[in-house]
Amino acid sequence: MARSRNFDENQALEAAMYLFWQKGYADTSIQELEKVMQLKRTSIYNAFGNKRSLFQQSLMFYLNTVLVRFITLLESGNTAKQAVKNALNEVIELHFNPDNPGGCMVVLSLLESHQHDEKTNDILNSALRQLRDSVVKTLKRGNKNGEFKNKLQYQSFANQVVALITGCIVLAKANFSRSELEKVNAAAICALFD
Amino acid sequence: MARSRNFDENQALEAAMYLFWQKGYADTSIQELEKVMQLKRTSIYNAFGNKRSLFQQSLMFYLNTVLVRFITLLESGNTAKQAVKNALNEVIELHFNPDNPGGCMVVLSLLESHQHDEKTNDILNSALRQLRDSVVKTLKRGNKNGEFKNKLQYQSFANQVVALITGCIVLAKANFSRSELEKVNAAAICALFD
Repeated sequence: MARSRNFDENQALEAAMYLFWQKGYADTSIQELEKVMQLKRTSIYNAFGNKRSLFQQSLMFYLNTVLVRFITLLESGNTAKQAVKNALNEVIELHFNPDNPGGCMVVLSLLESHQHDEKTNDILNSALRQLRDSVVKTLKRGNKNGEFKNKLQYQSFANQVVALITGCIVLAKANFSRSELEKVNAAAICALFD
Repeated sequence: MARSRNFDENQALEAAMYLFWQKGYADTSIQELEKVMQLKRTSIYNAFGNKRSLFQQSLMFYLNTVLVRFITLLESGNTAKQAVKNALNEVIELHFNPDNPGGCMVVLSLLESHQHDEKTNDILNSALRQLRDSVVKTLKRGNKNGEFKNKLQYQSFANQVVALITGCIVLAKANFSRSELEKVNAAAICALFD
């Protein structure tokens, strides 16, 4: 029988996720992790393994709580156009949510990929592909419903949407204003769908 | 009279730039800088100041040697469409050039912006705006030459191009293939200009 722990693992993991999201992998120290997770390092190591393993679990937590919202929005829009619009706007919500450190943990971590091991990089690379596949599904649904006049190149179209999503995150990190980003999204929706 | 140095400052700065580009700010140690710059730390400090100051000078070196190529391509295309196409393709050239560490130093550094001081963040933020302004200039030239049927929202259109450029860099870091990125660019050019 597994030893029961006297702390909430999800809560500790969420705190670790926010710190890694804010500071990246290399710049996050075990001392800071102890502080935000409210745990001694031995408890952290016992529950989550070393820093690398904790990072991977924090990243999975991010995928399951943050990235999943993009997938849900893509799969629940009335039309493909509305679904993609919702996903692009979620970038803005994500960045400007005062509870979040800004930007996106996947994009941040991808840019520091030399710091990660193969397993982490595989998780990161497949996160963007998962997002892309979700856009493809949405486009196919839209096409079935007669939303597009011309034949679509699903993969390239969907990769373009993922490039816009990740590019808007970079612009947000460069202090482009909410209003500028909203106009980029509106322009992108026109360019892609009209 | 300034003391003459017995080493090539530009060459040393270029070596520092490649290391920061590869590893980011936090993960680059002074020991590694000594090695790639082929200088003792006292010489580095005397010539370039502390690590933060060296980073800023490496970043300026990057802007003046790498980012400038995007500006040149944007300002020299025969049409706005061709100019933007050339700039998007330069992302692919930049990433897959075997001499480069991959990705873009500006985008990488923006994502680790909490590590930088105000001056560095100002340089980073204005680099993307400089790129955007250059796209606006290109679009205005194209409009003057009758390239666009409809009235353009120059700023939003140009921000969208910058989002695509930075987004493609993120995709490249996530190991999207050269062929996938070429198709994204082709799709983006169609969506933006046709």
